[in-house]
Amino acid sequence: MALLIIGSQRSEEFASAAREQVPDLDIRIWPDTGPVEDIRYALAWGPPVGALKRFPGLELIISVGAGVDHLMKDPELPGVPVVRYVDPDLTGRMVGYIALNVLMHLRRMSEYLEQQRQRTWRYLPEPAAHEVRVGLMGLGVMGKAAAKGLEALGCQLRGWSRTQKTIEGVECFAGQESLDAFLSGTDILVCTLPLTPDTRGIINRDLMRKLSRHGRHRRMPGPVLINAGRGALQIEADILAALDAGELYAASLDVFETEPLPASSPLWSHPRVVITPHNAAESTPEAISRYMLRQIARHRAGLPLENIVDPVRGY
Amino acid sequence: MALLIIGSQRSEEFASAAREQVPDLDIRIWPDTGPVEDIRYALAWGPPVGALKRFPGLELIISVGAGVDHLMKDPELPGVPVVRYVDPDLTGRMVGYIALNVLMHLRRMSEYLEQQRQRTWRYLPEPAAHEVRVGLMGLGVMGKAAAKGLEALGCQLRGWSRTQKTIEGVECFAGQESLDAFLSGTDILVCTLPLTPDTRGIINRDLMRKLSRHGRHRRMPGPVLINAGRGALQIEADILAALDAGELYAASLDVFETEPLPASSPLWSHPRVVITPHNAAESTPEAISRYMLRQIARHRAGLPLENIVDPVRGY
Repeated sequence: MALLIIGSQRSEEFASAAREQVPDLDIRIWPDTGPVEDIRYALAWGPPVGALKRFPGLELIISVGAGVDHLMKDPELPGVPVVRYVDPDLTGRMVGYIALNVLMHLRRMSEYLEQQRQRTWRYLPEPAAHEVRVGLMGLGVMGKAAAKGLEALGCQLRGWSRTQKTIEGVECFAGQESLDAFLSGTDILVCTLPLTPDTRGIINRDLMRKLSRHGRHRRMPGPVLINAGRGALQIEADILAALDAGELYAASLDVFETEPLPASSPLWSHPRVVITPHNAAESTPEAISRYMLRQIARHRAGLPLENIVDPVRGY
Repeated sequence: MALLIIGSQRSEEFASAAREQVPDLDIRIWPDTGPVEDIRYALAWGPPVGALKRFPGLELIISVGAGVDHLMKDPELPGVPVVRYVDPDLTGRMVGYIALNVLMHLRRMSEYLEQQRQRTWRYLPEPAAHEVRVGLMGLGVMGKAAAKGLEALGCQLRGWSRTQKTIEGVECFAGQESLDAFLSGTDILVCTLPLTPDTRGIINRDLMRKLSRHGRHRRMPGPVLINAGRGALQIEADILAALDAGELYAASLDVFETEPLPASSPLWSHPRVVITPHNAAESTPEAISRYMLRQIARHRAGLPLENIVDPVRGY
């Protein structure tokens, strides 16, 4: 039995980390697969479309990331179980990204950093965390963990998901029919939605216009967008237009329509946009290997797999 | 009976907020005090030395900030009770500042923001929160609240204080004799100490050299300093020297030896120093007025005052 690592620029690092944990593991790195019938398991991040169907003995696909849109877009994806990557290390990193970016805008850090460059000492009115309503769009593992972290920082919390959830301390909204009500009471929108046909382009001008206009009365300069989900959830031209129209105060974007974000994008130089290179939650070689090896061991022992993707839902 | 507001640039705002809560309050703003014998209460932020002794009927001094060094430095301070400002709004803001700045450096945001200015898309290795040891220097109201917030974000926590404390989830060190042990296991040092003769200049080159050198092995580029206490706790020339020598990776400073920080200070332009204008925890007019009025009401009702300063300890 052999493991294929495919798609990631960090395949070699993943292989080294896996070998440290299981030295005799037979690992093949795409495109050097050896005989295709050897491959039983695949650790994949955006594999070439059609690549995975070449392995007739494939039993399990493990996604390098929490999202699996990079796999589900393959119309010829083999009908074997796909497992999402869910791990405390990954989740903790996402919580850190979200807390950091909520606090950055709540504390007006883009403006303070600009003042620092100008050597200007000037107070700006800032809301207290308890005056700010963070709206979590997506209440999966990431959204729920973010709620816990933000609650400890004192933020007011609301959440929106496809199906109704109940989370202590979070006012939960569900479904298309309650989206407007969710948005109208949201000062800072945090998106961790999966990318599916239903969510593609959901972060558009219309949505941003529905965010709370009441922020100003609570010292919040205006609504904020934080997207830590997938780039195809957002319409970047709409984000820029909303910023320029004052419908958005600021944005933190970790994901983009095209990645790497092209050097020509005006997002790079917008004074109140914070850009990170799709690293909100890094899949470190140590953590992803540990997770993958556990899933493979469970599979070989006949135990149920964890975090299996529902092919109909698409995540 | 009259209330004097003295020292703050925001005295008028504090007076307006207090009048909104108690419309018939007799408020005098320094230096327009009216007859000095009218004054029973003083809300003070860095009053001129010797000013408060002029009021023979003064019964209580309320500090605008959590720290009272700005009062205790007055050798002629009247011997009436001094009350520190302790309020959930103030504490919550401090927790936000500390969490924000811990996360900024843990996530290497100074470097990412510089990359953004260069339109560069490049991953930098970042530690997970659980790999980082935050050392809280000062375990008063602020330090304890920060511990709770940082624990929710997954950081490892240790704390140091003058007298031994016990805080769940925090490895507590106490006294001069355990300072080195505390520092040697600290990756990110967060200072919320009060300024007293014992703590003046405590953040010096010698202290910074004792911070953990092991950070590199846990993907932490080097130790970080966050000072949200008082400027006179730090030797700024030493901070710059430590940064240049690689003994510190980065620093967030909210307080300075001289405030406002002079435009000539090299701290302004250091690429890994984050400067804010002493607003880590703003005393908002609404919150400080509410607190002050409660203390005055307690005093008039003969109830014990809250958060009284010990003149011997100096805080």
